[in-house]
Amino acid sequence: MPLIATPQSLHFAEPLALQSGASLRDYRLAYETYGTLNADKSNAVLICHALNASHHVAGVYEGQEKSEGWWDTMIGPGKPVDTDRFFVIGVNNLGSCFGSTGPMHANPDTGRIWGADFPVVTVEDWVDAQARLLDRLGVARLAAVMGGSLGGMQALSWTLRYPERVAHAVVVASAPNLNAENIAFNEVARRAIVTDPDFHGGHFYEHGVVPRRGLRIARMIGHITYLSDDVMNEKFGRQLREGLTLKYSTQDIEFQIESYLRYQGDKFSEYFDANTYLLITRALDYFDPARGHDGNLAKALAAATAKFLLVSFTTDWRFAPARSRELVKALLDNNRDVSYAEIAAPHGHDAFLLEDARYLGVVRSYFERIARDLGAAQ
Amino acid sequence: MPLIATPQSLHFAEPLALQSGASLRDYRLAYETYGTLNADKSNAVLICHALNASHHVAGVYEGQEKSEGWWDTMIGPGKPVDTDRFFVIGVNNLGSCFGSTGPMHANPDTGRIWGADFPVVTVEDWVDAQARLLDRLGVARLAAVMGGSLGGMQALSWTLRYPERVAHAVVVASAPNLNAENIAFNEVARRAIVTDPDFHGGHFYEHGVVPRRGLRIARMIGHITYLSDDVMNEKFGRQLREGLTLKYSTQDIEFQIESYLRYQGDKFSEYFDANTYLLITRALDYFDPARGHDGNLAKALAAATAKFLLVSFTTDWRFAPARSRELVKALLDNNRDVSYAEIAAPHGHDAFLLEDARYLGVVRSYFERIARDLGAAQ
Repeated sequence: MPLIATPQSLHFAEPLALQSGASLRDYRLAYETYGTLNADKSNAVLICHALNASHHVAGVYEGQEKSEGWWDTMIGPGKPVDTDRFFVIGVNNLGSCFGSTGPMHANPDTGRIWGADFPVVTVEDWVDAQARLLDRLGVARLAAVMGGSLGGMQALSWTLRYPERVAHAVVVASAPNLNAENIAFNEVARRAIVTDPDFHGGHFYEHGVVPRRGLRIARMIGHITYLSDDVMNEKFGRQLREGLTLKYSTQDIEFQIESYLRYQGDKFSEYFDANTYLLITRALDYFDPARGHDGNLAKALAAATAKFLLVSFTTDWRFAPARSRELVKALLDNNRDVSYAEIAAPHGHDAFLLEDARYLGVVRSYFERIARDLGAAQ
Repeated sequence: MPLIATPQSLHFAEPLALQSGASLRDYRLAYETYGTLNADKSNAVLICHALNASHHVAGVYEGQEKSEGWWDTMIGPGKPVDTDRFFVIGVNNLGSCFGSTGPMHANPDTGRIWGADFPVVTVEDWVDAQARLLDRLGVARLAAVMGGSLGGMQALSWTLRYPERVAHAVVVASAPNLNAENIAFNEVARRAIVTDPDFHGGHFYEHGVVPRRGLRIARMIGHITYLSDDVMNEKFGRQLREGLTLKYSTQDIEFQIESYLRYQGDKFSEYFDANTYLLITRALDYFDPARGHDGNLAKALAAATAKFLLVSFTTDWRFAPARSRELVKALLDNNRDVSYAEIAAPHGHDAFLLEDARYLGVVRSYFERIARDLGAAQ
């Protein structure tokens, strides 16, 4: 029997102070939970999502067989993060377009749709909002916080902002900050959206249009950077879409890779919000815990007391293993308890979402250790 | 005294049969020459250009100090390709926007500006057009053909289409074909241009507009892929544009890398033709000499009789050293005379245009050998 997921939502009246100096009040957070919180409320695991994901982490919705959560390979009954043992929480971040309060909702002060005026939110802001959600769910301390990519940044941030509330942090395919190339790709995607005439300064909702052209370009760039060179060559190579005959056209699809990218771009532009895209890529750009410590990552991570598992993938050039190793070193400089696995996987950054026996095995072992820690503490 | 360059142009009435099956008549080729053709016409060197370049390879225009040719570090009196010894020819390719016949010129059959209807041109077509130019200049056989990136593909193609006309080929930062990732980046850039409302199906000239948004995005993507991760981190890193204060904005420039990319995009969109961009990236996509040989590169290169120098750069991820090594291997499989230098340079693909003592030294040595060969033949 598959795990059945039920989306829930909570309203937060009290203003949340944001890193930018702005604040946000009367917002909602969408979330899901899987498994059961134990009597001493010690078995909670928070899952943080990356760019194109949500609170729907595991299981399927009633009667919708194909609606698997985005990390369903990882989380569920008997899976590496075992919902028979752990109480797993998925939460949608502020500014998203999948249920929590975001740019397509109304500013409570003006009654007008936020659009591009939705305040810039950071990884730290998300973590603060998640902490309030945990308060409401009665979870004082997490057995683990876990995330991949941008989700890994949130997991790391949890250990710095609420060290006493986190026993373990699992940080997958992540980095201590974006490098110049990462920021550059984000910026091109943002420019494609913002310069689309249908963007209307971020208030396209009231014009009844969507900046589809920009979203398509943004998604195509994203897909190229999520995949490795190797896997692209293996999956698509130089295969022509139509047999062996060249069309000699600059605008028609000639190669399979073009067809794939256009399809992904089209699909994305139909459901993803342009303002959310800007917000989430900006949160990625801004994340940099060492900023307040003269760029010294070891100093920045001194506040963390959690135990860590870090995982990276050899062909991930967006969040390369070297970036995870920077985190490992900075944690070891602080004498922290760190496990690190570098998985030889061909799939690039996407690998963190895919089924890979070694990867899932490492996470399984680590969560068995967390479960043993919990048992010993009881 | 600096080398003074003088642009020239020749008209070709006779139709040129293109790979696509179309043909092009009454076209002009813009070119420049430097140095003097010797008595037996054996010292000619043809330079082939890449995406954003032209026939203006070396020297400056009279009275315009800052108008250096795009490979002026490499070519000139006393330089690695020494114009005191060699007669060097730079030629602008068909479809370009820098002087040779291209999309902004009129179709002689209709009198209408070509626009997006300019026939798709391939590396092979360019080489055929260049061969006709050499006929007119009285050059039966080249001492060397040389190019970087897409220019290297032309040099390679010369050795296959006109083996008897090429003594040496110098192929820098090139590849036997584009891989899926390369095609993918080209496709995103093309989609950005084609979906810009100001593109007007490629006939924007008659609307008095230019698809600037698309060109900007295309150029930003280009710049990211020309540079290495390392050099971007060194040049820009996470530096903020305005001191240490964050603005918390999704649309304002926050990081220096954003400022750089926007500037490059803006500049490019003011002078580069959108249809030319489509044509040139498509020529890159199509080039694949092994296509007609069941993908067997060694078979494809069996026709080449030239001697080769290949050069690659360690941090070039657009045309990685591994791609040059494929060429080296395929040439060695045919018992060809090949020299290969892999230069440890931090600048990514851009390195082929920059001053690097080891790189320039290798090319200098090779051209000294070519000069000796010429001396021995005389």
